[in-house]
Amino acid sequence: MEFNPILPDAYKNSEFLLLGNIDPALQIKVMEQMTTRPKLIVLDTMNFWMDIAMDNLKKAISMVDVLTINDSEARQLSGEYSVVKAAKKILKMGPKYLVIKKGEHGALLFHQDSVFFAPALPLEEVFDPTGAGDTFAGGFLGHIAKTRDISFDNMKRAIIYGSAMASFCVEKFGTEKLKELTDDVIQNRVNEFIDLVQFDIDLV
Amino acid sequence: MEFNPILPDAYKNSEFLLLGNIDPALQIKVMEQMTTRPKLIVLDTMNFWMDIAMDNLKKAISMVDVLTINDSEARQLSGEYSVVKAAKKILKMGPKYLVIKKGEHGALLFHQDSVFFAPALPLEEVFDPTGAGDTFAGGFLGHIAKTRDISFDNMKRAIIYGSAMASFCVEKFGTEKLKELTDDVIQNRVNEFIDLVQFDIDLV
Repeated sequence: MEFNPILPDAYKNSEFLLLGNIDPALQIKVMEQMTTRPKLIVLDTMNFWMDIAMDNLKKAISMVDVLTINDSEARQLSGEYSVVKAAKKILKMGPKYLVIKKGEHGALLFHQDSVFFAPALPLEEVFDPTGAGDTFAGGFLGHIAKTRDISFDNMKRAIIYGSAMASFCVEKFGTEKLKELTDDVIQNRVNEFIDLVQFDIDLV
Repeated sequence: MEFNPILPDAYKNSEFLLLGNIDPALQIKVMEQMTTRPKLIVLDTMNFWMDIAMDNLKKAISMVDVLTINDSEARQLSGEYSVVKAAKKILKMGPKYLVIKKGEHGALLFHQDSVFFAPALPLEEVFDPTGAGDTFAGGFLGHIAKTRDISFDNMKRAIIYGSAMASFCVEKFGTEKLKELTDDVIQNRVNEFIDLVQFDIDLV
């Protein structure tokens, strides 16, 4: 018995589609059930699928707008050690945007010849990192779906929101911390990201 | 025969002092030769001195304003795994500022309860990382000495200049690339750092 996802009719014309980290054959099946091409499709995957299902994975990747993987997976997928070179190769495989997640070292967003970097918030205590990547993806696409803006500038904001959500995720067990969040708490956390990287240089 | 640094008279009232990574006993000897307390003293060190000369190192650290170490050294020096907790402990040892260098993952600047993060520039090719840490320290204090401003805001700019200089260092062998730099090339590189982390979020 295989898992075979059947989309409810109400889902088939969703504007935003996040394909979680499962067998790329199933990710393709989900995309094929969409009656309207979503405004933005995000695909998350991992080294396991690169090891056992690279052909299907490359097909799935060619059909999406945003790919999210970690740095070692970017190296494996591209055969390039430099993440910059890896990103250039991967952007030729189909996605217009590539997010490279580096855990406690932040995340990079590549688009054409541009790159944006969002740090991870330095935390006093990391209680449980389980789910941080999924929370990042959810926060990322959640911001885009809420604003319905798929520009590069808004993707940068989405990376910050994703990073903020992930920083909450790791502070408690499972979804505990996420369930108790309020808008104020989230905005304060986003402010911490702004403070973390903000500097003023007057160029000559 | 031991190396015993004797400062020329003209150096003894320098406003800015960078103590390179040598035996902390020698770093102390240099400080003791200063006739005027410098406006800012920066000390660079490494795990080796923590292993064999921790007492002298702690004495040296207690006499300086800025300490630069990497993340594993911050853990070793403090006995704390979390870099945030490590930074809090180290700031109690004397320095007002702590720079934690994370190589390709950037650098953190801690001061009181504030933290600033500067990414490393994602480079297509790293030819030779030798000297990147020293180049960072030189660019950092070079900016401060040029501007003679030791505020936290200016330290942030100094971290960016240090990171920019380090990014040049690794692109060629030894000091080759650094010797051919012009102001324009440096400013363009600093601009890349601005683009790398810049985002606009309108908070509600």
